[in-house]
Amino acid sequence: MSERGLLIVLSGPSGVGKGTVRKAIFERDDNEFQYSVSMTTRKKRAGEVEGVDYYFRSKEEFEAMIEAGEMLEYAEYVGNYYGTPLTYVNKTLDEGKDVFLEIEVQGAQQVKDKVPDGVFIFLTPPDLAELKARIVGRGTDSPEVIDERMRVARQEIEMMALYDYAVVNDQVPKAVDRIKDIIVSEHYRVDRVIGKYIKMLKEI
Amino acid sequence: MSERGLLIVLSGPSGVGKGTVRKAIFERDDNEFQYSVSMTTRKKRAGEVEGVDYYFRSKEEFEAMIEAGEMLEYAEYVGNYYGTPLTYVNKTLDEGKDVFLEIEVQGAQQVKDKVPDGVFIFLTPPDLAELKARIVGRGTDSPEVIDERMRVARQEIEMMALYDYAVVNDQVPKAVDRIKDIIVSEHYRVDRVIGKYIKMLKEI
Repeated sequence: MSERGLLIVLSGPSGVGKGTVRKAIFERDDNEFQYSVSMTTRKKRAGEVEGVDYYFRSKEEFEAMIEAGEMLEYAEYVGNYYGTPLTYVNKTLDEGKDVFLEIEVQGAQQVKDKVPDGVFIFLTPPDLAELKARIVGRGTDSPEVIDERMRVARQEIEMMALYDYAVVNDQVPKAVDRIKDIIVSEHYRVDRVIGKYIKMLKEI
Repeated sequence: MSERGLLIVLSGPSGVGKGTVRKAIFERDDNEFQYSVSMTTRKKRAGEVEGVDYYFRSKEEFEAMIEAGEMLEYAEYVGNYYGTPLTYVNKTLDEGKDVFLEIEVQGAQQVKDKVPDGVFIFLTPPDLAELKARIVGRGTDSPEVIDERMRVARQEIEMMALYDYAVVNDQVPKAVDRIKDIIVSEHYRVDRVIGKYIKMLKEI
């Protein structure tokens, strides 16, 4: 009668350091969640290991899995597919274990649609926290440059609105601590535990 | 331009150990939140200090404050009033500091109505986590005894449903850690931080 695990999604704008933070999380040995290895059609690079860094598949194999509804999310990026196979995620959640995904924002949107009760964490660049200073700059920038920065900032804030938490990546170990705190706390949310009690009462 | 602080409410069924957990929290020196001292009409006991344990007031003074709308919440218990004066809470929140209340469930309900974006933490007895074993007992209890336990359990679960988090008070230091984790994590919730970013963009 184990409860289903939590699906934890870490995402954020390109270049924010999602991969670095995720690696730092899994270098710790006190995690009570499993990392879901992504699948990709890009070529394996020197040092990369099948099933550790990625599952490396051909374009045909990947497209067949999309067709069969076997991907939780996927995105195309620079001519290659990247995505999360559904089977491992479901199996692990069913075992009552939490699953951690580190994915692009397009993929996170797909997961949000399918698993709305996941925990969605948006990693923000430290300069989003100093938004005003960044946008106005030194007062010597052209209106066009300032407008472009405003556009990017608006886009990042719009993306953030879809998430449950926003964590600033100012220092990797701090970002890791915040994410681990969030995952622990989410387990105490009433809407996640109350079902267990109600079910128990009904079984008596 | 400081943000308003969080209102944190710890409550739970009578006898669960709310006061003990609250005292253990405030014995630590790394808290980034302020304790709001309650007001009461009961007599001061030996060793109790005005403004530390309670604000001790007469029944007339307390009722005048209720009339004037100066109580965030209050309850009557064994012929005495207990409650939270509004002024300190508002002033501290306006300074951008978090305020911690430890109150009875009736009071928590009143705060929930007035401050729905507070953080509501329900402390549960350890045996609620072992509900089934507790209710069924050793199989030697009368149906009446089992029914009464079912009634109490249902009542506790109904109360819990109004809260954001449920924390089991199995061991005081563990309960303290969980509560402190929750308070930290709540600061990263998107709905609490996104307003700051939107406001900044508008000001540019």
